[in-house]
Amino acid sequence: VDTPANEPTERLTALAERVDAGLADRLRFVVELDRLKSVLRRTRIGDGSRLENSAEHSWHVAAMALVLAEHAAEPVDSERVALLLLVHDVVEIDAGDTFVYDTDAQATKDERERRAADRLFGALPKAQHDVLRGAWEEYETGDSAEARFARALDRLQPMLLNYLTEGAAWRAHGITAGRVLEVNAPIAEGAPDLWALARGLVEDAVARGWLPEGEPTSGS
Amino acid sequence: VDTPANEPTERLTALAERVDAGLADRLRFVVELDRLKSVLRRTRIGDGSRLENSAEHSWHVAAMALVLAEHAAEPVDSERVALLLLVHDVVEIDAGDTFVYDTDAQATKDERERRAADRLFGALPKAQHDVLRGAWEEYETGDSAEARFARALDRLQPMLLNYLTEGAAWRAHGITAGRVLEVNAPIAEGAPDLWALARGLVEDAVARGWLPEGEPTSGS
Repeated sequence: VDTPANEPTERLTALAERVDAGLADRLRFVVELDRLKSVLRRTRIGDGSRLENSAEHSWHVAAMALVLAEHAAEPVDSERVALLLLVHDVVEIDAGDTFVYDTDAQATKDERERRAADRLFGALPKAQHDVLRGAWEEYETGDSAEARFARALDRLQPMLLNYLTEGAAWRAHGITAGRVLEVNAPIAEGAPDLWALARGLVEDAVARGWLPEGEPTSGS
Repeated sequence: VDTPANEPTERLTALAERVDAGLADRLRFVVELDRLKSVLRRTRIGDGSRLENSAEHSWHVAAMALVLAEHAAEPVDSERVALLLLVHDVVEIDAGDTFVYDTDAQATKDERERRAADRLFGALPKAQHDVLRGAWEEYETGDSAEARFARALDRLQPMLLNYLTEGAAWRAHGITAGRVLEVNAPIAEGAPDLWALARGLVEDAVARGWLPEGEPTSGS
């Protein structure tokens, strides 16, 4: 489809096709990946200047895997954890970011993300499809020590950014301490040390007035 | 140092210290990583709307490693390539991004980045220091098939974004086709297929008027 909007992408794919037909499909996916840089999360980067996007978030948590691996509940292959985290949000290119405290959006998240996975990974040659889809499925199901630790890091990272920005996203969305502890409790399973840190951080944020106390609610 | 600017970081480190002294050093590094999201490159993201930052660039090239590994000149461990690319630009937190076409800045790059590596990786406990510093050194020296392929991807990615944005960074900085081919020639060593693609892309960009022909020069 030679519309003006995606014409450079089509042309680039045609150039790749001259080299190798598989390369054309892989390159089209590489170009799609670029769009994750425009998917905005609710969390602000550490200096509070702007919202974080899902591409840089994915980099941050993948790098955290290399640094924090010894805090995993069970021994993990840290490179594998990083790989799962590199891939875990790719589906947001189609499905958008789903705020962890948004109960309504959470209810439709699995279905939206599964459709996105079908389209995005489905366009890859089989070898790459299997690697990327496999990593995404492993992360989603939490069926390995690596996936459980990866999921813990994905929960901890926005808590750190919220702390650094004096609760910016919590305050913007009326989140309470009870809700933060409820939603992020899976950190305990993947990384007990990091859960101890997270609990301390919530307690301190409450003491500083960045996060209201309060029971778990369904949140906004 | 309890200055207002970094007080939340200090407080966060103190909370981590209560859990584990090593965690405090690792967490301080994790917080420093966040600053890579504010290091801007010369290249625009694919829709042309803004400059790319080094954190999302690092994510993009690391994901490319998983997708394009079979185009490496020699067989590579794609997870290792991704790891090298996750870490390769961390030194820019201190040293800033150095434009590949800026000859003057390139002359001081190694020294600036080595100092940055000493400070940033040097603050980590030994186990993590060795993993991250090792990855960065391997990438810098190009002393493995993985590093040579990683370096090829790091060169190809901005060429793709330049093509998608009709030569935005090339035009903004007066870069010629001869210079693009000269500076990016290392792609040929790490990934011959991708070099064939890159050459086709340059030729097409010239034909479309996005990139002036011209001999290699020292550029701006």
